[in-house]
Amino acid sequence: MSGDYKNMWKNLGLDLEAHDALLEVLGTGYQDIYMSQQDRPEGMGYFDFVVSEVHGLRIKELMDEKAAGRKVIGSFCVFVPEEIVRATDATLVGLCTGADFAMDEVEKLLPRNTCSLIKSAFGFKLGKVCPYLESADMIVGENTCDGKKKSYELLNNLVPNLYVMDLPQVKSAEGRALLKAEYLRFKKAVEELTGVTIDATRLKKGIEIVNNKRKAVHRLSSLRKADPAPISGLDALLANQVFFYDDPVRFTESVNKICDELEQRIEKKEGVFPEKTPRILMSGCPMALPNWKLPCIIETSGAVIVGEESCVGERGTRNLTDNSWDTVDELMEAIVDRYFQVDCAIFTPNSDRLDHIVEMAKTYKADGVIHYGLQFCQPYLMESMPVEKALEAKNIPSLRIETDYSMEDVEQLRTRVEAFVELLK
Amino acid sequence: MSGDYKNMWKNLGLDLEAHDALLEVLGTGYQDIYMSQQDRPEGMGYFDFVVSEVHGLRIKELMDEKAAGRKVIGSFCVFVPEEIVRATDATLVGLCTGADFAMDEVEKLLPRNTCSLIKSAFGFKLGKVCPYLESADMIVGENTCDGKKKSYELLNNLVPNLYVMDLPQVKSAEGRALLKAEYLRFKKAVEELTGVTIDATRLKKGIEIVNNKRKAVHRLSSLRKADPAPISGLDALLANQVFFYDDPVRFTESVNKICDELEQRIEKKEGVFPEKTPRILMSGCPMALPNWKLPCIIETSGAVIVGEESCVGERGTRNLTDNSWDTVDELMEAIVDRYFQVDCAIFTPNSDRLDHIVEMAKTYKADGVIHYGLQFCQPYLMESMPVEKALEAKNIPSLRIETDYSMEDVEQLRTRVEAFVELLK
Repeated sequence: MSGDYKNMWKNLGLDLEAHDALLEVLGTGYQDIYMSQQDRPEGMGYFDFVVSEVHGLRIKELMDEKAAGRKVIGSFCVFVPEEIVRATDATLVGLCTGADFAMDEVEKLLPRNTCSLIKSAFGFKLGKVCPYLESADMIVGENTCDGKKKSYELLNNLVPNLYVMDLPQVKSAEGRALLKAEYLRFKKAVEELTGVTIDATRLKKGIEIVNNKRKAVHRLSSLRKADPAPISGLDALLANQVFFYDDPVRFTESVNKICDELEQRIEKKEGVFPEKTPRILMSGCPMALPNWKLPCIIETSGAVIVGEESCVGERGTRNLTDNSWDTVDELMEAIVDRYFQVDCAIFTPNSDRLDHIVEMAKTYKADGVIHYGLQFCQPYLMESMPVEKALEAKNIPSLRIETDYSMEDVEQLRTRVEAFVELLK
Repeated sequence: MSGDYKNMWKNLGLDLEAHDALLEVLGTGYQDIYMSQQDRPEGMGYFDFVVSEVHGLRIKELMDEKAAGRKVIGSFCVFVPEEIVRATDATLVGLCTGADFAMDEVEKLLPRNTCSLIKSAFGFKLGKVCPYLESADMIVGENTCDGKKKSYELLNNLVPNLYVMDLPQVKSAEGRALLKAEYLRFKKAVEELTGVTIDATRLKKGIEIVNNKRKAVHRLSSLRKADPAPISGLDALLANQVFFYDDPVRFTESVNKICDELEQRIEKKEGVFPEKTPRILMSGCPMALPNWKLPCIIETSGAVIVGEESCVGERGTRNLTDNSWDTVDELMEAIVDRYFQVDCAIFTPNSDRLDHIVEMAKTYKADGVIHYGLQFCQPYLMESMPVEKALEAKNIPSLRIETDYSMEDVEQLRTRVEAFVELLK
C-alpha cells in the first residue's frame, strides 16, 4: 500500500495498529495467492494496484468525493440498486466482509452459529478496520436471510446511519409490489441524503454507467468459454470482487482492456492452464474480497475455474436494466424488473437458479460444479441439495463444500477437491 | 395407548414397528416426566388420557370426521389461521415435530446444521410415524424462518398436498397487505378443499370456537400468577401443546375444568411447589409435544415455570380475534389484525417481543427468565441477545440456553439451570 494514509485512517476512527496488521495479512495473502500465478494477463496489473490501494487511494478518492459534496453509500448485498445511487452522483461501495477479524468481540454480540460473512462484517466494525464502513454516509442493510435480517438489528447499535431495506421471499405479484415500494422508498432516502432530485436524465445516466460495468464483466465471462482458459478463476473472481469497490467507469475500462488482451490470447490459443485442464463452475455463496480460500485450493489442485454462479459473479451481474424508457416511473419499473430476476436462495421456490447453474455449466463447458456453502448459511446450504439433484439429472458431476473463513480445514478441503478433480479427468 | 388401532395406522401407511417403538419411548418419557410429579390437579387426568391416545383415539376421531366428509389440515406454525379452517368444519392439527426420529435419513436430505424442529418434522415423515401428517388432506407450510422456508421445497417432494403460505418480515403497510393477500388465498384454498363457502355466520362461529380456546388458556395462565403455583409449568405446557391437537370445544371445556380446580387450590393456598419457590418465565423457541427436556430439568432443579413466552404458549395464544364484525370482509380484516400482532422473531425489528417478555416477567412475578433457543434457529438465537439486554435493563436475571432434542447435554444443562436457580433464591 503506497502513500501516507495514516492521517486519513485516523480521522476515520480506524484502529491503526489493528488496521496495519490487517493490511499486512492481506498483502501477504495476495502475494502468496495471486502473484504466484503463472502467465497472468498484463491487464491484471491494474487490479494488483487496486488491491494494494483498496484501503488507501480508493478511500482517498471517496474522501475527495465527500469533500466535494458527494455522498458514499455502503452495502452488503446485490439487491441494493446502484443505478439509483449513481443517479445522484453518489458512490455505492461494498462493505468489508471477506475475512475473520476481532472474532472474540464478535462472538459476544452474535451467536456462534452465525455464518462467516455476517461475523466478518461485525468484526470489521468492532475491530475498527473497515474504512469503507467508516466513510459511508449511509449503510444499507437488507432483509435477505435470517442471519443478516436479524443481525442488522444488532448492527444498528454500532453504527449511526443504518438504513434497512425489506425484500420479498416469493416472486409473486405481492413480492414485486414490495420490492417496488422498497426501491421507491430507497430512492427517496438517497435523494434526501444527497439533496439531489433524481430525474429521468440522471436515472438513465446511472443505469448506463452500471449497465456498462455489467457488460464489461459479461464480456470477460464470455471469453472464459475458451479452452485453454485465457484467465484464471482467481483473477476473474478478483475482477468480480473489485466490481463492488472501484470507480465504475474506470472499472469498466480496465475490464475491457483485459478483455482485449484475452481475445488476443484466445486467438493464439494461449492460456493460463494447459488445454483440457478440468474446468470447474463455482456456485453458491458470495466470496467477498479477500475470501480466496476455496478458489485457490481448486486452481492449485489441477483445475481451472471458468465461472462463478454467485452474487460476486454472474448471479449479481447477469441481467441489464432496460434503459430504453423515458420517464422516472418507467425507469424505476425497469430497475425493479431487473433486480426481481436475481435468483438468490432467499426466494422460494427458486428453480430459476437450478436452471441457471445447469445453463452456466454448459455455456462455460464446465466438467463439474463445486457448490460453495458458508457454514450456517441456511438458504444456500438447503438449496445445495436440489442443486446437486438438478446437476445429477444432467450428468454433471458436483461436489458440495461447506466451510467458513478459517484456514483450519484447508488440507481437508484440498483432499476433497483433488479427489473431485481427479474424477473429471 | 388403549384400543386396537393397528389397522388404522397400517391404512395410513405408518411403519408399525417404528411407530410402536416411538409410542413406547413416548409412553416411558411421559411416565418418567409427568406421572412422577406431585400434587397434580385432578383435571390433568384428561390430558394424561389425551397423550395416551394422541396417536390412537384422536386419529380415530379425525378418520371419522374424514369419513363424514370433513377435512383435516395439518400445520407447523401459529400463523395458519385456525378460524378459517374451523369455518369450513374442517379440523386444524399441529404436525409432529417434538422429537428426533430417523435422523440418519433426515441428514441425507437436510443440512446437518438445521434446527431440531425442522429435522424432526422430516424424521416423522421419513420414518412414517406421524398419523397426523398422513391423515391430513392439506399440509400448510409457511415462509417464517429460512430453515422452514427452504425445507418446504424439499418436503414438497415427500408429500403430495403441501400448500405454502408466504409471510411478511416487516410490520409495514406492505407487510400487512401481504398477510391479508395470503390469508384470502388460504381461505379460497380451504374453501376449494372442503367444498364449503365461508359466509359471515360460519366465520363468526369459527372465530368464536378458537377465541374460546384462547380464553381458556388465558384463564389458565392468569391463575399461574399465584404463589404457591397451583400447577406445574410442565402441566401448563402440556395444555398448550394439546391446544394444537385436541378437538377445540372439548379442549376448552377441559382447560376450564382445570381452572375451576386451580381456583379452589389458590383459595386454600395449595400449590404444586412450596411458596417462594423460584419462579421462571420460559421464553423463546416453541416446544412441540413431546419436547419436555428443558422444562423437566428446570422443575426438578428447584424452580417452577410460571409462563411460556412461546408459540406453544402466550405468543401463540395471547390475542383474540375481534368477532364484533358482520361481514366476511370485516372478519377477515380482524383475523389479519390479530395474527399481524404475533411477535415472532422472523419480524424485524421485533421490539414488541422484548416488551412482552418484560411484561410477562412482571405479570407472572417471575424471578428470572430462561431463554430457550434451538441450536441453528437464527431468528431466536440472534434475538436472544437483545432479550437479555432488555431484561438486564429491568434488573431481571436471565439465562440463555441453546440446545437441541438430543439428551446428550442434559447433565450440562442441569448444572447451568441449578446454578441459575440458586442465584434467584
